[in-house]
Amino acid sequence: MSMEQGKAKYDEVYGEGAADRLLDMLYGPGADLGRYGVEFNFGEIYSRPGLDLKQRQIASIASLVNIGGVEPQLTGHINAGLNVGLTPGEIVEVIIHCVQYAGFPRAINAINVAKKVFEQRGVA
Amino acid sequence: MSMEQGKAKYDEVYGEGAADRLLDMLYGPGADLGRYGVEFNFGEIYSRPGLDLKQRQIASIASLVNIGGVEPQLTGHINAGLNVGLTPGEIVEVIIHCVQYAGFPRAINAINVAKKVFEQRGVA
Amino acid sequence: MSMEQGKAKYDEVYGEGAADRLLDMLYGPGADLGRYGVEFNFGEIYSRPGLDLKQRQIASIASLVNIGGVEPQLTGHINAGLNVGLTPGEIVEVIIHCVQYAGFPRAINAINVAKKVFEQRGVA
Amino acid sequence: MSMEQGKAKYDEVYGEGAADRLLDMLYGPGADLGRYGVEFNFGEIYSRPGLDLKQRQIASIASLVNIGGVEPQLTGHINAGLNVGLTPGEIVEVIIHCVQYAGFPRAINAINVAKKVFEQRGVA
Amino acid sequence: MSMEQGKAKYDEVYGEGAADRLLDMLYGPGADLGRYGVEFNFGEIYSRPGLDLKQRQIASIASLVNIGGVEPQLTGHINAGLNVGLTPGEIVEVIIHCVQYAGFPRAINAINVAKKVFEQRGVA
Amino acid sequence: MSMEQGKAKYDEVYGEGAADRLLDMLYGPGADLGRYGVEFNFGEIYSRPGLDLKQRQIASIASLVNIGGVEPQLTGHINAGLNVGLTPGEIVEVIIHCVQYAGFPRAINAINVAKKVFEQRGVA
Repeated sequence: MSMEQGKAKYDEVYGEGAADRLLDMLYGPGADLGRYGVEFNFGEIYSRPGLDLKQRQIASIASLVNIGGVEPQLTGHINAGLNVGLTPGEIVEVIIHCVQYAGFPRAINAINVAKKVFEQRGVA
Repeated sequence: MSMEQGKAKYDEVYGEGAADRLLDMLYGPGADLGRYGVEFNFGEIYSRPGLDLKQRQIASIASLVNIGGVEPQLTGHINAGLNVGLTPGEIVEVIIHCVQYAGFPRAINAINVAKKVFEQRGVA
Repeated sequence: MSMEQGKAKYDEVYGEGAADRLLDMLYGPGADLGRYGVEFNFGEIYSRPGLDLKQRQIASIASLVNIGGVEPQLTGHINAGLNVGLTPGEIVEVIIHCVQYAGFPRAINAINVAKKVFEQRGVA
Repeated sequence: MSMEQGKAKYDEVYGEGAADRLLDMLYGPGADLGRYGVEFNFGEIYSRPGLDLKQRQIASIASLVNIGGVEPQLTGHINAGLNVGLTPGEIVEVIIHCVQYAGFPRAINAINVAKKVFEQRGVA
Repeated sequence: MSMEQGKAKYDEVYGEGAADRLLDMLYGPGADLGRYGVEFNFGEIYSRPGLDLKQRQIASIASLVNIGGVEPQLTGHINAGLNVGLTPGEIVEVIIHCVQYAGFPRAINAINVAKKVFEQRGVA
Repeated sequence: MSMEQGKAKYDEVYGEGAADRLLDMLYGPGADLGRYGVEFNFGEIYSRPGLDLKQRQIASIASLVNIGGVEPQLTGHINAGLNVGLTPGEIVEVIIHCVQYAGFPRAINAINVAKKVFEQRGVA
């Protein structure tokens, strides 16, 4: 697990300096888990070859729609999706696609999260 | 909901004549649900523009990894993924990507399903 | 999937003109999913014979208690239950019944949603 | 929690002497949990007024469809549904109704469990 | 199911008089479920020998992290954990341990709940 | 993430040489995920101070009971629990404790897994 690689990949997704800003904010109980998030999720998983970042964000958004009740993470990953080049329309399609598996309540809740992110960023 | 469109899209994913073979096999309690699967899932959702079939299979596989306990459907959608052009390596990457969200037990169970499909089809 | 039939059934559950008001409110990312909700859920599923609307609301409320984290939908379906003739006492019984399967945390959260709906409608 | 009441209600659902046969079979690690199942689930929850046994079985079956991965319990409760007077058609409708919330994979798996129960009992 | 025993055990976890205060607050739809919580959860399950209260709180907290979307109950059980002698550090470790199974989103949400409880109680 | 540390901790839980035997068995699609399991789960998470191995196994078993549908992992972790010194009685208590949160179906399925492990190892 490489923090170096994790920070580089995290910045590639969330923008120059984002990992350092995240790590600076981490303290107390959540600090280690946040660090694993950068090191393992970004330094290992996201850094693997075989899928590009748009494909990875499709998988991340679909995961969170199906888990349900994880609105903060869904907000983050919809933003990440836009950052790496998914269009708002593609993100909406991923969520609608998941209604077959996740059912209507979770899909509708996810669409409402997407709507808020799009409004905040002024995209649609 | 169009059965016509559903059959066409289902055949595009599973091969010429697959929808008719499925519908012929359906009888009794499961028949209506199977028909909705073709009409709604394939005639509506899969037929929407905005994502190609490879992107849709990434979202489907990620969904099923996260739901857990749906091995028959995961088997079907890993096969579908190969049918529409995802490589075995890409499918494995989608499953490994989901470990961040679904946890290790569900990701490992999903990898084992993929392994069986790849062996049956002689791909790896 | 019939929008006509979906609107008729939706209005039967939520009151004269409710479907048109819902559809008028839908725009942007959530519009298609909302439309599927009317067409598929109400135009197809709710319109099937074999269960009356009170039985369907028992199944809907039980589903949402077990899924968890879908308070907006649970609020809607508890209202719908009252609309189609379930008593507050019957709705509470459905939720308490589900504690065997859903566990205490989700059952308690659902009871608290019911309590709010009953207070808003001045029933108990 | 009354074992007496639990046995009476359990027998009302599963047939004369069923609770004694269950309790005789329980030994070792599972014994206490099985006893709680009779005492709490049947002696308390199922014994509450406010819903009849057909309504309770609708809620139980809907719960298990949405939880997923609990085929033995779904088998038991579909049998219980038939025992208390739900028709096979009504049980199928409950499962199909839940597709809106549980998604297609779990609904399809549940229908297949129902199919097996109906075949074993020679009903359809 | 013994209310007497339930109240005694509940008070052992939450402090002298806590069960009476809880039961006094219960009225209306939630009352019976709250009573079962004291009688069954505390009068039966928590009162069983074989695990001490610290071990039981480890199991409770791990359960709630994995279920997700049950923040009020997690808040209660993290408080209970501190009450029975788990240190803040041990509670954080239980949550971090669960990341393997529950995935990052649910573990991070749980850590944030713990952080709030620790701040309210002035521990860390 | 240290493979060295992961193997040492894995062997501490599963016995001398267990990690090497596991890693030798890994090939193809599952290999990387298995390696992360050793490196991240055992090299990082299990290797953290703050909880002993018995406490960690309580949290692991509780997690798997609540997730449901992960019998292979539950089998592994019940074995691990016995390996690190939990008694069969303590493991049963953890599972029964979780019935409050996971509901009866998942708790009963978990007890049946425990029963099989205990029989295979000739403990009770």
